[in-house]
Amino acid sequence: MSVVESVRWSKDGSAVDIIDQRLLPGRLERRDLCTVDDVCDAIATLAVRGAPAIGVAGAMGLVVSLAPHVSAPRDELLDTVRMLGDRISRVRPTAVNLAWAVGRVQRTAERATGDGAAILAAMRDEATRILEEDRAMCRRIGEYGATLLAEGSRVLTHCNAGALATAGIGTALAPVYVAAERGQRVAVFADETRPLLQGSRLTAWELAQAGVDVTVLADSMAASLMRERRVDVVFVGADRIAANGDVANKIGTYPLALAARHHGVPFYVAAPWSTVDPDTASGDAIRIEHRATDELARGFVADVVPEHVAVYNPAFDVTPAELVTAFVTDRGIIRPPYHFAHERHAESGQG
Amino acid sequence: MSVVESVRWSKDGSAVDIIDQRLLPGRLERRDLCTVDDVCDAIATLAVRGAPAIGVAGAMGLVVSLAPHVSAPRDELLDTVRMLGDRISRVRPTAVNLAWAVGRVQRTAERATGDGAAILAAMRDEATRILEEDRAMCRRIGEYGATLLAEGSRVLTHCNAGALATAGIGTALAPVYVAAERGQRVAVFADETRPLLQGSRLTAWELAQAGVDVTVLADSMAASLMRERRVDVVFVGADRIAANGDVANKIGTYPLALAARHHGVPFYVAAPWSTVDPDTASGDAIRIEHRATDELARGFVADVVPEHVAVYNPAFDVTPAELVTAFVTDRGIIRPPYHFAHERHAESGQG
Repeated sequence: MSVVESVRWSKDGSAVDIIDQRLLPGRLERRDLCTVDDVCDAIATLAVRGAPAIGVAGAMGLVVSLAPHVSAPRDELLDTVRMLGDRISRVRPTAVNLAWAVGRVQRTAERATGDGAAILAAMRDEATRILEEDRAMCRRIGEYGATLLAEGSRVLTHCNAGALATAGIGTALAPVYVAAERGQRVAVFADETRPLLQGSRLTAWELAQAGVDVTVLADSMAASLMRERRVDVVFVGADRIAANGDVANKIGTYPLALAARHHGVPFYVAAPWSTVDPDTASGDAIRIEHRATDELARGFVADVVPEHVAVYNPAFDVTPAELVTAFVTDRGIIRPPYHFAHERHAESGQG
Repeated sequence: MSVVESVRWSKDGSAVDIIDQRLLPGRLERRDLCTVDDVCDAIATLAVRGAPAIGVAGAMGLVVSLAPHVSAPRDELLDTVRMLGDRISRVRPTAVNLAWAVGRVQRTAERATGDGAAILAAMRDEATRILEEDRAMCRRIGEYGATLLAEGSRVLTHCNAGALATAGIGTALAPVYVAAERGQRVAVFADETRPLLQGSRLTAWELAQAGVDVTVLADSMAASLMRERRVDVVFVGADRIAANGDVANKIGTYPLALAARHHGVPFYVAAPWSTVDPDTASGDAIRIEHRATDELARGFVADVVPEHVAVYNPAFDVTPAELVTAFVTDRGIIRPPYHFAHERHAESGQG
């Protein structure tokens, strides 16, 4: 099994080699980011996305964009490091990982001794460390998480917290990859994740690439799947974890948790420790970003599910009577207990 | 307030006048169905849709398509009635309303006495009766349902069980229309309803046409809306109601019911009595139709939310800690109770 690498050094180390995620799932194309313009553009246009992946790409991008300036005098070089780093960090100001990772490389430059080549080498080492730390973090999450999977486990996930969102094997998908690596049979159901469809476009694609059995479904179909006892465990990522354990994550995570609880399906949140925010007491303190109308209102032209990926697409679901407060019919309002029989409530029966 | 009429007689009675729902929400265009080809085509291509509306359109369509044959001898005329009626019924064989309504008009023809004109008049009366019964059914549901709405009620609905799906003011939306007619303030949240988006395309459109305040959201956003205490009541339709009260309805209804129960929001099913199937003991006996992959996999080009309709589009939601079975982090698996504090679980803390 081989998991896609969304961010890595190019062969000769002169560029950041990324998967252009804007073309997925239609086309797999890698791009070399060689200049600061390349790096900023890739981050701004979501060619690279996912907080950890953006951080790693930004740190590495600072290194490659500094290379042409390596023979400048030290002071001028450090000015350029600050200027380029700040430019990269500002591309997505709310992505804390980006400023954090770029900042680490900037500080490394300031502490480094020797000539331009020595400074650049120190920066490259630091960026490589950030890349490797991210990979190791994913790996550890995967190893811990794999202990929660059994042979044949059927995993439901939401959005994309996979290899495409990190430099490693992902967070929510890491346990799946580790289990698959060990030869365990594991199948994944991927919520399409409206409105931007990261589940069908990205999660389904990267799992299919790795040869993992994956089925796409609309978000509203997950509860039916659980009712059919076809989900053993839910794994989702997290954007922020409050001190009390409340989890902010992609819209649609919460109803999954409700359905999982109702059906006795374990609901696991897989995330790097850096996601924990002890200064946020509970979820009520988390301000939720609201996004543009057009994300919901406009059509999308491209195909969204990778070819040959299975789809679960029931037209209807069944709601158990115990969840129905009342029936409003042309014969009146009928309240529990419900015992519908031929003609029993005929005409006069208003319950 | 004026509710759209999806199916009615044309002014001179020679045609079935429908709203072409394929063009919604982009364009409101009415079409006169004059021939059996028109009628079959409109039903097959979903220009007219919704079980009650299809039944009414089919019954009325049989009358208009018989008109050119009115001077044929009785036996030949009745043969034509059978032939045309069977052709219309076969367009959507699983739509029981269609065969039922067309059958009523066919039997009326067989029982009618007099010449061709007399037979046709009897058939027209019967089709008109079906139309009016449907309108009256909707009206009664609306009046019963309106008693469940208060001034300022905020209603959440799923799919389209509105005027566009019936010849009258709908089923799930009927209480909203009746309340609005009486001058009550009422606001509706319409789930977009993946994969075919009947909520954003049709429900939002017909409510906006009637001047009812409507906001579209993705299906996975409804639970967050309830958590914010912005939903007072849920109204959905039903495709079938089992003897024990289990409800088969558009996929996505069930997770709404779970979320409503969790938040103490009443969950009402509004449906004609004819939806009750006493011969089906429970929901487990209902076979659920699975539909084509392409519905989920392919993009859609047209805009799906009517212009000027509001959208609720949060990027994230918050899942309360009590629903999280465990956190899988790079520092280990953390189980409840959760008390995340600075450094408390540092490195060794595997919970």
